Amino acid sequence: MSELRRDPITGRWNIVNVDEPLGPDDFEIERQRPASASCPFCPGNERMTPPEIYAARRPGSRPNDAGWQLRVVANKFPALRIEGELARRGLGVFDLCNGIGAHEVFIETPDHDKQMADLSLGELEQVFEAYKSRSLDLRGDRRLKYTLLFKNYGLAAGASLEHTHSQLIALPIVPKRVSELLKGAERYFEFRGRCPFCDMIQQELQEEQRIIAENKGFVACCPYVSSFPFETWILPKTHHSDFALSDPESVRDLARLTKEVLTRLRMALTDPPYNFVINTAPIEPRERDEFHWHLELIPKLTNVAGFEWGTGFYINPTPPELAARVLRQLAVPAASAVVS
Amino acid sequence: MSELRRDPITGRWNIVNVDEPLGPDDFEIERQRPASASCPFCPGNERMTPPEIYAARRPGSRPNDAGWQLRVVANKFPALRIEGELARRGLGVFDLCNGIGAHEVFIETPDHDKQMADLSLGELEQVFEAYKSRSLDLRGDRRLKYTLLFKNYGLAAGASLEHTHSQLIALPIVPKRVSELLKGAERYFEFRGRCPFCDMIQQELQEEQRIIAENKGFVACCPYVSSFPFETWILPKTHHSDFALSDPESVRDLARLTKEVLTRLRMALTDPPYNFVINTAPIEPRERDEFHWHLELIPKLTNVAGFEWGTGFYINPTPPELAARVLRQLAVPAASAVVS
Repeated sequence: MSELRRDPITGRWNIVNVDEPLGPDDFEIERQRPASASCPFCPGNERMTPPEIYAARRPGSRPNDAGWQLRVVANKFPALRIEGELARRGLGVFDLCNGIGAHEVFIETPDHDKQMADLSLGELEQVFEAYKSRSLDLRGDRRLKYTLLFKNYGLAAGASLEHTHSQLIALPIVPKRVSELLKGAERYFEFRGRCPFCDMIQQELQEEQRIIAENKGFVACCPYVSSFPFETWILPKTHHSDFALSDPESVRDLARLTKEVLTRLRMALTDPPYNFVINTAPIEPRERDEFHWHLELIPKLTNVAGFEWGTGFYINPTPPELAARVLRQLAVPAASAVVS
Repeated sequence: MSELRRDPITGRWNIVNVDEPLGPDDFEIERQRPASASCPFCPGNERMTPPEIYAARRPGSRPNDAGWQLRVVANKFPALRIEGELARRGLGVFDLCNGIGAHEVFIETPDHDKQMADLSLGELEQVFEAYKSRSLDLRGDRRLKYTLLFKNYGLAAGASLEHTHSQLIALPIVPKRVSELLKGAERYFEFRGRCPFCDMIQQELQEEQRIIAENKGFVACCPYVSSFPFETWILPKTHHSDFALSDPESVRDLARLTKEVLTRLRMALTDPPYNFVINTAPIEPRERDEFHWHLELIPKLTNVAGFEWGTGFYINPTPPELAARVLRQLAVPAASAVVS
């Protein structure tokens, strides 16, 4: 018999196949990659991208020239643009506004052949520090209400270029999924007086079976109400609602655990495509008691089909207890996992 | 500049690329199909499926034997099962229950080489009548709260067998997406005193630019807030909240318009994979004033990635005005479109 599991925050139920679960070798992974004759993200090709907005550079090197370790540029094909007026208006029963916002690309390393899992801890810290810096900078624009940081890795997960990169989209509206999470978290907080994520972390650390790894500041687990096989969350152990306000020590712990998780996923699933998002609170001048930022990573192993679209529920063939055990029990070479 | 468009019912905003839209030839469609050495849905192989629950058969033919035009069987690998107790319970901060429900497969024709678009109008009517009949029968089980009818066509859209079929999943819970739609529709109804779908249909028929085709009882359009390229809805023109109570004349009009839409999509996008769902009200002993059942069809042309997962918003590269124009303006041979 399968199990139906309910998310305490959104009220979403997922169907989990606990009887005949799919393991790491049961997924067919599409591995085709886009060709990259001349990569716009490689050193020497800086003129192929829009001008850089932010960079980590060798002292003395010039913007939009070689000598960088990390570059942030506007997306050449942006979903939203910073220029113009929002102009909210009605159209009969519908509402619309102009596509105002920001869409930026983080080129995580000059090395075309490295993936995010290959970055050194210092390089990964640099990526997360760049996420923070860009998020904070965009708060100056009062039209923007939410900043999403995310990564698509691999063609099947939506990456159109193979040179490792991540993205930021800043929106003039708090997105539906975020406002749903906030509302659910508020309801939980009203009822129990505690952050639901803090309660969840405590329960996961006690039960242990869905934990992948942890360090001083962060824990990685396959959440009880996973929507997808091998879905993995990385959460700060202490309460913070706003990723962009993370201190340098947190960023170090986050980089270390992210590298370990990416390494374990690559070994367990033979380098799967994946998406991750940083799920943080809307732009606002306060810390929220009921919300807890975290990173959500989803390997792209299954197709979302009619059932998921029609219901908003997910059928997950791999119980998170199994996924976490597989990921936890892998013998990861110390050099590639934690030190590098 | 792109446009942000807001769904009046759920509050979801989508980003629509109105400046540099993608047309029907801009999508790479994965066309690989699963091999079918011995198809369990072909006549003569009836013993390869669970016993039939419903069938349209030649007079005198026996259940689970040849002589059928349509068969409904339990899914051999069900997400949910009808046997057992629901047993709702808590687990720390989480809730769970057993996977009680129904999961059935509609084998739409004995002919392995026909797709749904190839079915005659009589065969298509038979499929929709079977959907109705199974939906009504399952209402006898008081544990079930919602019945979803859906179809996955093509490997990329989640179909594991190529012999044309659709599915039913009955759930012990009203799914999140449906309860969100109902809540949004109730809010609209409270404010304006009318069904939001009726208002939307009226507006679409007046504006014309997103209409694909219509007949006496139904209209097909690309909705103003389409989440995906070439997303298509088929709606009854008069108010009904419950698909399963459709009368035979409605079913005839529905079959005719569905065949036309499937034919146009196949021509415009060269036989794309797709999902459709019938979005109807929960199982309950009343018609709802504020909800309006409809069929939602999504060709599988793009990958859902980090942005969509993180926000619940969609980036749609093809404005529905363009998609509808392409679909509407195709010269469809009369024989394959309407008469057959």
